[in-house]
Amino acid sequence: MTEARTTQEWLEARRAEVDRALEELLPGEAGPAGTLARAMRYAIFGGGKRLRPLLALAACDAFGGDLEAAVAPASALEMIHTYSLVHDDLPAMDDDDLRRGRPTTHKAFGEAEAILAGDALLTLAFEVLATKPGGEGKAAARRADAVAIVARASGHAGMVGGQIADLEAEGSASTRDRLDWIHRHKTGALFSAAAELGALHGGATEDERRAMARFGHALGLAFQVQDDVLDRTSDAASLGKTPGKDERSGKATYPALLGLEASRAEARRLAAAAEAEIPASARVRERLLDVTRSVVDRSH
Amino acid sequence: MTEARTTQEWLEARRAEVDRALEELLPGEAGPAGTLARAMRYAIFGGGKRLRPLLALAACDAFGGDLEAAVAPASALEMIHTYSLVHDDLPAMDDDDLRRGRPTTHKAFGEAEAILAGDALLTLAFEVLATKPGGEGKAAARRADAVAIVARASGHAGMVGGQIADLEAEGSASTRDRLDWIHRHKTGALFSAAAELGALHGGATEDERRAMARFGHALGLAFQVQDDVLDRTSDAASLGKTPGKDERSGKATYPALLGLEASRAEARRLAAAAEAEIPASARVRERLLDVTRSVVDRSH
Repeated sequence: MTEARTTQEWLEARRAEVDRALEELLPGEAGPAGTLARAMRYAIFGGGKRLRPLLALAACDAFGGDLEAAVAPASALEMIHTYSLVHDDLPAMDDDDLRRGRPTTHKAFGEAEAILAGDALLTLAFEVLATKPGGEGKAAARRADAVAIVARASGHAGMVGGQIADLEAEGSASTRDRLDWIHRHKTGALFSAAAELGALHGGATEDERRAMARFGHALGLAFQVQDDVLDRTSDAASLGKTPGKDERSGKATYPALLGLEASRAEARRLAAAAEAEIPASARVRERLLDVTRSVVDRSH
Repeated sequence: MTEARTTQEWLEARRAEVDRALEELLPGEAGPAGTLARAMRYAIFGGGKRLRPLLALAACDAFGGDLEAAVAPASALEMIHTYSLVHDDLPAMDDDDLRRGRPTTHKAFGEAEAILAGDALLTLAFEVLATKPGGEGKAAARRADAVAIVARASGHAGMVGGQIADLEAEGSASTRDRLDWIHRHKTGALFSAAAELGALHGGATEDERRAMARFGHALGLAFQVQDDVLDRTSDAASLGKTPGKDERSGKATYPALLGLEASRAEARRLAAAAEAEIPASARVRERLLDVTRSVVDRSH
């Protein structure tokens, strides 16, 4: 582990470790399935912020856990996040040509390849969660719990459920309740799982894990509201994708429902609500707070 | 557990239990993500033979394991098999309108819905493997192992890797080596995982698990060769899909490479090789043998 003096340096050091882990965990490009590996790597190494892995590592650190051991499972969260972007960008879904300033995976590799690369990233995430870190007994039981936490948050009762509700809401009149439902599932669930996964591998108690899940959930909603605000206020260059697309395609957004200023206030309120969930027993709070601030203060 | 006198009755009773487990494990159709649940159920309850779950249960039984406890993880294999069919049938992949005599999932629900239903089935499979059967200690460690076994077999180094190699082989001259590689990954890997998963939950030793993985692998290849033979010799009504499609789309098949009679002989040879892998320590062999025979003797 690299030493770091400021929280920002700490986060940068963890981000570099996550990228190294992803480099090691993703398959090599040789052999008959080489195209698959290239498409997986293209999607993963497209300049993501690694926010969900960093959230997991900050949560692990908050309970005094072994950070080095937690890097691989934390990185699995980025595989799941990336697979969801690859599938969301497909012509049958959001039909996006641009992601983080580059052609989307199906534009670069073809549709079939993008579908399969997403499938393989999702599957690899669970392989990593089930096998890393190693160890028998309690360590093995934690790995089974890790798979369960992330699978619940990613599937029909979480992210994928939110995605289908989002698709079906397109073009129809939306209420605040409906929009909240979509974003609790589409975004909140995986943030919640990230914080709980980190707490699990940090050795937190059941109660602490549940509190961290609530922290992550509120943080995910703050992230989504801020995302909607940026989609309205930023240009394509700083956003890395076409701004205003959600509103034009008839998707409900927070600014459209609440107005821009009220949406900004809502993001700040949710971030504060997230911070209030951090258990008093957490030994290190500043990194969690810094991740929270970076979500609300970001410009892209 | 229902009592059964013949092997055929035993298999039928297990198949009914797998269907009941799938019914319980799949999400309900209420709420904002109801379409997703309907698409998942449509794909799962389309008349599959449940061969991979039955293989796992026969393997569990061979080592004297608790069959009732193994039904849920065995059923997770059917979720993974089904997701792979839903994605394979998509327009960007094999573009099939018919599956098991009914419209494919994307024909019935739309492309986006089929992609997401596949994603949700894959994710649910890992949630089930990580949580069923319950129990602490050794049981939890087995669940982590179960996820690892199935994830390795389903992802880039297994099923999805085979699928991309299969797509890329379309229209190009194929060799026996290439065809074997594709089917070892596309079909053999998940059969291998099914047999190993059953042995794991049956309480088999490491050596026995490895032998059962080899058994399943050879059986999967026998299944695939027989699939190619049936694709050449059957009509649409008994096959439930359009026959001869693989050859017309330029995909390599065993009958095209070896001829029909040599392919039939190869299927029988592989089934015999599979049987030879069953460890002498297996207490009950007849169900494994019956599953093996049903693979080679089937007409659809």
